[in-house]
Amino acid sequence: MKNIAVIGYGVIGKRVADAISKQDDMKLSGVCDIISDWRIQNAVRKEYDIYAATPEAADNMKAEGITVKGNMQLLIEKSDLVVDCTPKKIAEQNVIIYKTQNIKFILQGGEKHETTNHSFSAENNYQSALNLEATRVVSCNTTSILRTLTTLKKAGLLEYARGTLLRRATDPWESHLGGIMNTMVPEREIPSHQGPDAKSVDPDLDVITSAVKVPETLSHMHYWNVKLKKNTTKEEVLKAFKTSSRIKLIRYDQGLVSNNTIKEMFLDMGRPWGDMYEVALWEDMLKIVGDELFYAYVVDNQAIVIPETIDAIRALTGIETDALKSITKTNISLGIN
Amino acid sequence: MKNIAVIGYGVIGKRVADAISKQDDMKLSGVCDIISDWRIQNAVRKEYDIYAATPEAADNMKAEGITVKGNMQLLIEKSDLVVDCTPKKIAEQNVIIYKTQNIKFILQGGEKHETTNHSFSAENNYQSALNLEATRVVSCNTTSILRTLTTLKKAGLLEYARGTLLRRATDPWESHLGGIMNTMVPEREIPSHQGPDAKSVDPDLDVITSAVKVPETLSHMHYWNVKLKKNTTKEEVLKAFKTSSRIKLIRYDQGLVSNNTIKEMFLDMGRPWGDMYEVALWEDMLKIVGDELFYAYVVDNQAIVIPETIDAIRALTGIETDALKSITKTNISLGIN
Repeated sequence: MKNIAVIGYGVIGKRVADAISKQDDMKLSGVCDIISDWRIQNAVRKEYDIYAATPEAADNMKAEGITVKGNMQLLIEKSDLVVDCTPKKIAEQNVIIYKTQNIKFILQGGEKHETTNHSFSAENNYQSALNLEATRVVSCNTTSILRTLTTLKKAGLLEYARGTLLRRATDPWESHLGGIMNTMVPEREIPSHQGPDAKSVDPDLDVITSAVKVPETLSHMHYWNVKLKKNTTKEEVLKAFKTSSRIKLIRYDQGLVSNNTIKEMFLDMGRPWGDMYEVALWEDMLKIVGDELFYAYVVDNQAIVIPETIDAIRALTGIETDALKSITKTNISLGIN
Repeated sequence: MKNIAVIGYGVIGKRVADAISKQDDMKLSGVCDIISDWRIQNAVRKEYDIYAATPEAADNMKAEGITVKGNMQLLIEKSDLVVDCTPKKIAEQNVIIYKTQNIKFILQGGEKHETTNHSFSAENNYQSALNLEATRVVSCNTTSILRTLTTLKKAGLLEYARGTLLRRATDPWESHLGGIMNTMVPEREIPSHQGPDAKSVDPDLDVITSAVKVPETLSHMHYWNVKLKKNTTKEEVLKAFKTSSRIKLIRYDQGLVSNNTIKEMFLDMGRPWGDMYEVALWEDMLKIVGDELFYAYVVDNQAIVIPETIDAIRALTGIETDALKSITKTNISLGIN
């Protein structure tokens, strides 16, 4: 049984820790952070072993009555792999420690591809990550791009894809700290970074994106124009999308007309935090005009990379060499499908 | 001097009335509405002749101390042309009256093309509207599409265009009556109606749009992917856009990074209500990749059709037969350029 550590217990880290706990072929060795307030109490409630990233954090945690198992180095020693879920750029510093302590590690999409020289998306390149020392699970938006375009590519339908990404302005729990109101804020550069980022997993993809921040916190929404390799039917396209167990086809005509209705449905389903691990793609809105395909979908930026991270753990530790078997196992554990 | 009446004194009507008043070759004969509250007081302050659309409205206005000049029929009799700015669908009923009283009329973009059988966009088809009995000034989004694509078409650059339209959820003054919060609401159909609507002015355009409502009230934002007829330079594209006096090239690097900063600039400029009659297109964000062009712009849905409406008045009444002369005259009167 491999021991997996989670460094950084924030929006992604707390979800990854829970997801690891739900697997029968890996074990959560502990979580490590610097927070000592209500946020770490979630780990206390769940009886996770808590480690402190700094001596100061250890003192603060102890002052709050939290049992601290040790420091980050100790947690790493007790583990076979660490999943780094620290905020953007901090992982870069942690990587030096991981390399010094000679432990396998997984980074999240906020970091650069060059930090690991491998970027991961389960349904696209699981095999190439087998037994590697490190990988980077690409970001939420990039993951959704890879999932959808990989199915079209495998079906021989994808010539190229152009997307407009409407991004949630900030995460819900942080929205009191700063967000945007009653405006829209484009990314400075066209193309935005998500297109090139998708190529870090699959260099063959011809994909260009633009991105704009929108004053809401629920999820991202993407609009895509895809040039098809050949004229085809809506049925063929839907068949391609259905080959991914992590694309959920939804219907506008069933009342799923917006981000908030989709969110409520996933809360109804009893998913933790209402998490949507899938890309929710509108089946009835999807349209083919000549050799062009148009569709829109929603991405839960807090949740979509969680199953990907579990698969990445299996690939790097080599506990499962078959992509589909890992994906299926992860899906069942998280209630996908 | 032609007498022009404004029927419907709402968001568009009050702006059209002011714009007519600023011209030296037409005269505002009066405004007509059913409202008797603070909204009509704006017309009182400006000493416009006020007509009541119904006997009940006339009573209410009088009760509020407003001088009512007469009913709608009387206003029409005193006018050479009416601009109908009533809410969507109501114009359809008014058209019967206009035809009965045999007066020229202009409708706004919420109405169907078939109601007038001519749709208007000054820089595209002014000439075809000369001395017609009626036309429809296309909607804010469609106007922006026509302005931008017409310049690319005239420069021989436009193969086809695909756009994603991020729509403001409701008008600012009405946002207490209902809007959307913390979500995004796609239009049910892809393609959305704006693409086909642009073809009602220029059937040659190959344009497909998708649209989504965003929780803000300031303005619309469009992202466009254009297939170019030939490889070209950014300079050539900007040169084409500059042929329109109603496209304002703006720079992200000058701090114009969002809808709200653009709005504030137009308020700084002293425009009434901060109105932006122009399409504000990000020059530095614009990108060419091979034979594809990517750009984004902002549309003030309350203002963009105002200069168009003034030009439509000149075309229908025949007081100016040259498009460029009318456009220039309108621009100067409204402070464009």
